[in-house]
Amino acid sequence: MVETKINWHSELDDPEAFRAFAHEAVDLAADYLAALSERPVYQRMSPEARMNLLEAPLPETGMPAGTLLDRFQTEVMPWPMGNGHPRFFGWVNSPPTAIGIVAELLAATMNPSCAGGDHAAIYLERATVRWLMELMGFPTEGSMGILVSGGSMASLTGLATARQWASTCDGWNVRDDGVGAGDRMTLYVSSETHTTVIKAAELLGIGNRQVRVVPAGADFRMDISALEAAVTADRNAGYRPFAVVGSAGTVSTGAIDPLDDIADLCAEHRLWFHVDAAYGGPGVLDTRVAPHFSGMERADSLAIDPHKWLSVPVECGCVFVRDGTLLRETFSLVPPYVQVDEGKGIGGLPWYAEYGFQQSRGFRALKTWMSLAHAGREGLSQTIRRHNELAQYLAERIDDHPN
Amino acid sequence: MVETKINWHSELDDPEAFRAFAHEAVDLAADYLAALSERPVYQRMSPEARMNLLEAPLPETGMPAGTLLDRFQTEVMPWPMGNGHPRFFGWVNSPPTAIGIVAELLAATMNPSCAGGDHAAIYLERATVRWLMELMGFPTEGSMGILVSGGSMASLTGLATARQWASTCDGWNVRDDGVGAGDRMTLYVSSETHTTVIKAAELLGIGNRQVRVVPAGADFRMDISALEAAVTADRNAGYRPFAVVGSAGTVSTGAIDPLDDIADLCAEHRLWFHVDAAYGGPGVLDTRVAPHFSGMERADSLAIDPHKWLSVPVECGCVFVRDGTLLRETFSLVPPYVQVDEGKGIGGLPWYAEYGFQQSRGFRALKTWMSLAHAGREGLSQTIRRHNELAQYLAERIDDHPN
Repeated sequence: MVETKINWHSELDDPEAFRAFAHEAVDLAADYLAALSERPVYQRMSPEARMNLLEAPLPETGMPAGTLLDRFQTEVMPWPMGNGHPRFFGWVNSPPTAIGIVAELLAATMNPSCAGGDHAAIYLERATVRWLMELMGFPTEGSMGILVSGGSMASLTGLATARQWASTCDGWNVRDDGVGAGDRMTLYVSSETHTTVIKAAELLGIGNRQVRVVPAGADFRMDISALEAAVTADRNAGYRPFAVVGSAGTVSTGAIDPLDDIADLCAEHRLWFHVDAAYGGPGVLDTRVAPHFSGMERADSLAIDPHKWLSVPVECGCVFVRDGTLLRETFSLVPPYVQVDEGKGIGGLPWYAEYGFQQSRGFRALKTWMSLAHAGREGLSQTIRRHNELAQYLAERIDDHPN
Repeated sequence: MVETKINWHSELDDPEAFRAFAHEAVDLAADYLAALSERPVYQRMSPEARMNLLEAPLPETGMPAGTLLDRFQTEVMPWPMGNGHPRFFGWVNSPPTAIGIVAELLAATMNPSCAGGDHAAIYLERATVRWLMELMGFPTEGSMGILVSGGSMASLTGLATARQWASTCDGWNVRDDGVGAGDRMTLYVSSETHTTVIKAAELLGIGNRQVRVVPAGADFRMDISALEAAVTADRNAGYRPFAVVGSAGTVSTGAIDPLDDIADLCAEHRLWFHVDAAYGGPGVLDTRVAPHFSGMERADSLAIDPHKWLSVPVECGCVFVRDGTLLRETFSLVPPYVQVDEGKGIGGLPWYAEYGFQQSRGFRALKTWMSLAHAGREGLSQTIRRHNELAQYLAERIDDHPN
């Protein structure tokens, strides 16, 4: 028999109590956003404020929800990172879209796991990723994409696919036999490439000494002849060059590598072409600078971060892979004879867990879908263009004042 | 000069419009939660409903926020995964805590990136992870933990640390030289171990053929003598056994491996002991079954998923590493001479980005902190105990009806 003893229930299990509490939270959020421009961008936490959070004991008995909201208001909210403020110039870390904030509440209300299945979140993610591909000019037919935590996971996913592809080309399988079983792979980045790519190569077992740092020119773009020389030297030395990473907007200067030239070289040398467009990719929506991105659409895999320039609340990264079947071969643990094909079986889509590393996956599609649909292509393009104009204006002011 | 042309603004940029919209969303969420038990647990999506989401074109011009809320209500919300419903028996995928739903909105309002820095989210994560360690009985002194997307990333993080530790023990560095540079590593799991661990070994470049599947006994627990035999055989064959994964609650049957015995064997053979407690770890809060978890606290690394049994909204995984400095050595790309030490420099904590794979990191600490503090140790323990009683009751009903 089930013992009849008193069990803990949240006061918020009552729907009307939840409603009242969530309305209070909304007012707190709205007041915070309304007052944001009046407060300092950032202020160092007082030692007391730090210790208060850091050393708080695990509560033995529960705290009322209202107390927690008060504590959040007085102990957490006064010490933000600063990135929501209109005068935050710390770049990369964007303010959130207002509609994305609300979407987070709605996504958690439904709380699906997006490993797969036949429920709305799965279809919404497919559409959202396709929209992102269309915005970036990436081919949608035959390709596949997946939302991930951020640019690091997106690049890891792309490079894992590259590693898998290279081993298969050479007649072995890195998933089965491990990195040590084939010729030693080498990866090519420029000196301006973000360190997360190095971290991905380390995690994949490639080793950072196998990452060739190709010099960038005075324009901070990868030197193509140096890249070609490095690939040739490695091949002659018995290494297995497998992938090149081009940046579509480096973090330090915003430089865009000569993507078309890298794509040509990759095609000629049969190398995987990964583009790290995490930070800069949406720049392609500004028609005045779009030509600089030429070749981005030729990537075998591409990483973007909707939580950066598109202001979707963190975390939201995305990876596109040109050949969707390769992505599945890299991550699927399901034997081919029980894999779901689109439009067959229960009618659902293939499982996302077969296309990426995560098993449980949150409903990050909702905040992305709402943010993109609310602005539309036109609104996003105008926003990106405006940002570039402001950057240009700042550059001119600096040029006018050489001191 | 900045061009003066019309730019897109969200109607929600007006704080009062945001307030009204978010209140509407709260009512939608509250109505959904209130009516949940009246609706079917799950229903297959109609083909029209699927196509409607899947084939929707990228909007060229933006949609009003209210339209999007209506579309969410009519096109998305009617097709949930089912896991919030009181009669959902699909296990593992939990309903969200009500306070966690609200926390998602507040976290996105502040929208910090938790790579590091001196702002409240960083301190709150430290405290929250310590609370989780205390709940699981894991030592807090000298250890370090980090919130991640889920159990897959948690186990990947633990095993990456194991791989790093093993190479360092052998006088080389896997981050520098890659998996192929040392003796071929072997990993030990039981036949009941979750496949995400195999996936982690593949991603790390170990290769699934280097993963030894030790048989489980009739009780679904790892056979210790078979484990010892496998380790010895591999060592004699010139392999490098490096880590054993024990499960504190397997997904299929809830079996808990003989963790103390595995810890003894790991100590004797100098192997890393990783515990996958993603699903079952919080079971230790039920004093009647806690003895089965004995040895869990001896893990070198441990994965738990607050988004499973603790009902924190997805995504929320967590990894603990007994020797925090090893975790940092595995992921830090910052040279030691510029690393921040606790209580030194600007007074902030070491950066989380040095302790894990992600660079940008969301504020998932808030929903976890609020969920834990709201229930307290007592509320959590009562809930876990109640779940175990219900499972016991179900088992008895089944035993009573052999047909």
